[in-house]
Amino acid sequence: MTDLLQAGRLERAHKATAEAGLDALLLTPGADLRYLTGYDAHPLERLTCLVVTASGSAALVVPELEKAAAEASPAGELDLPIVAWPEGGDAYAVVRDLLRDACGGAPGQVGIANRMWAEQALAFAAALPGTEQALAGPVLRELRVRKSPAEVEALRRAAHAIDAVHDRVGEWLRAGRTEAEVGRDIAEAILDHGHAEAAFVIVGSGPNGASPHHALSDRVIGPGEPVVVDIGGPMPDGYCSDSTRVYCLGDPPPEFAAYYAVLLDAQEQACAAVRPGVTAGEVDAACREPIAAAGYGEYFIHRTGHGIGLDGHEEPYVIGGSGEILESGMAFSIEPGIYLPGRHGARIEDIVVCTESGVDRLNRSPRELVIL
Amino acid sequence: MTDLLQAGRLERAHKATAEAGLDALLLTPGADLRYLTGYDAHPLERLTCLVVTASGSAALVVPELEKAAAEASPAGELDLPIVAWPEGGDAYAVVRDLLRDACGGAPGQVGIANRMWAEQALAFAAALPGTEQALAGPVLRELRVRKSPAEVEALRRAAHAIDAVHDRVGEWLRAGRTEAEVGRDIAEAILDHGHAEAAFVIVGSGPNGASPHHALSDRVIGPGEPVVVDIGGPMPDGYCSDSTRVYCLGDPPPEFAAYYAVLLDAQEQACAAVRPGVTAGEVDAACREPIAAAGYGEYFIHRTGHGIGLDGHEEPYVIGGSGEILESGMAFSIEPGIYLPGRHGARIEDIVVCTESGVDRLNRSPRELVIL
Repeated sequence: MTDLLQAGRLERAHKATAEAGLDALLLTPGADLRYLTGYDAHPLERLTCLVVTASGSAALVVPELEKAAAEASPAGELDLPIVAWPEGGDAYAVVRDLLRDACGGAPGQVGIANRMWAEQALAFAAALPGTEQALAGPVLRELRVRKSPAEVEALRRAAHAIDAVHDRVGEWLRAGRTEAEVGRDIAEAILDHGHAEAAFVIVGSGPNGASPHHALSDRVIGPGEPVVVDIGGPMPDGYCSDSTRVYCLGDPPPEFAAYYAVLLDAQEQACAAVRPGVTAGEVDAACREPIAAAGYGEYFIHRTGHGIGLDGHEEPYVIGGSGEILESGMAFSIEPGIYLPGRHGARIEDIVVCTESGVDRLNRSPRELVIL
Repeated sequence: MTDLLQAGRLERAHKATAEAGLDALLLTPGADLRYLTGYDAHPLERLTCLVVTASGSAALVVPELEKAAAEASPAGELDLPIVAWPEGGDAYAVVRDLLRDACGGAPGQVGIANRMWAEQALAFAAALPGTEQALAGPVLRELRVRKSPAEVEALRRAAHAIDAVHDRVGEWLRAGRTEAEVGRDIAEAILDHGHAEAAFVIVGSGPNGASPHHALSDRVIGPGEPVVVDIGGPMPDGYCSDSTRVYCLGDPPPEFAAYYAVLLDAQEQACAAVRPGVTAGEVDAACREPIAAAGYGEYFIHRTGHGIGLDGHEEPYVIGGSGEILESGMAFSIEPGIYLPGRHGARIEDIVVCTESGVDRLNRSPRELVIL
């Protein structure tokens, strides 16, 4: 058990639950459950729930027909009872009874997974009348937000895997093809380069590049157009990649080239600002100021970045005004963008880790505009 | 607007909300939101929420940087205001103010999407103190559970697309390859045959076939082994496929062949039992009885089926004891299985639609054991 990435995490969770004044955590499938047990359960209408109590007990409640899968997962190697409920049975009553046994009565307050489905939260509220519900996120955050060296290496492997895909984009991206066609090839390469899933593939050509969360369309990519490619997904161990590069099919429009240089500089400055003790808001400002100074401030319409780990988006968020103090081990994206509606846009995104001495940039593919 | 699949749905939702005694529905990204607006929004930490009031107003609240994507979706063609909230702003206050305006004060009870994240449900509870939360599911169910002819055709296209993949499984499935290798080829074919996503790919070889929700592993598939292949995903219009067939790499073990014949017969009998007025529990019984009569009852460890539409699993559920009366237009899976722990297993799954006169079986690929 000692070589498991999950070793010791449940113990820390019990302690953190008690410190937060909660009687227990109820964690449905998602990154929190996976972080604590290694079990990559899929969210289903049948309840799967990890129960972690402040008093030191834990159980993984699963539907009967998921039991074999749960036991075969790393959760099966932990000192963790796996309790199966039968098809058609009342899973919420099973959890309620476990809680009553562990807490010596009805719990006063439980922390529920931030992404638990409302139908499950309301079913727990009905099964546990008088028990207050809070979010488990703040408890898990304290465990998850500072990545261990092993987690940083997992994120680095993910980053290098997505770098390898960016290095090959020229094989597929050319004028006359649609965004969807190019995206399909990229998605395949994301898997070829070791990801478990191509979670998102954004190919924003020409004016579509000005919509930050445009995904793919049947738009035919034209000659001379800038194309924003933002791609990533989880590796088999669950740790995620996320990287954006910009390509141009020939010489870029002059104005585009001008603001791309501003963006590249801003991204560089924001990365350089990362070190322990600096706030997330200060990193956001370091990114935003050079863009504003060049007159493009109103076109940088989103935050500078988001944390990354077992979730593609998690804490810490790098957003204006945030007083969150960066600590060694925090991992997040730095991804400024400039978007000219109806014309074109650009974004440069790397995953970085705050280290004792400054910053570790995980992505290695060139950040300069790639002319194809 | 009249040729939109979504036309008229918002009007029915207003009426159903009022009839349910709710002041409004709050629908975060998911099948309900997509059903009503056609907008395939992805669940993100930034709030996207469709507000539908009993009094007849509606608004789609989106983060500023999703506005272009929302407007470019079918939602942009509806008579539906799209309200963007700025990065770093309070999206919940925006929804609260919309509700107060529409309801002439704080709403008494709102219906929240069944799969809304708990962090959003609790944020709404904080923004709307005194407003009771119920589930929106029962309201949307009345709209979604009986598929229109256009929806049935969408499900049929999805079924035929997954049939085409099953028809090709022999190209990839052979002894000496791992489940993961075979699964990768199948996932690619799921996309090649028109799906938007390979949502799940189960390749359960030998003993792994006895775990109904086993997905993929590095297990090398051996000669003579039965292999359960359960695959599907959404098409670009959102409607899902889901079909299971069983393959054997050479002649099957005699006992396996014996219970496969039982299973095939049970699946046939369950499909034949489908017609309006019959309960879902009766269909489950029609499936379960022949399996029990043959002595395999204890090895059929799950319900007979689940509804399907814009969600891969939705109402109605075909489960023992259910008194739910089938109606024309209901679409669901019929998927009995027999699982011998540690040895092998089998499942046969089709999507069927209850029609005025009986049943419409959407999948066409052969259900007999496929010997490769």
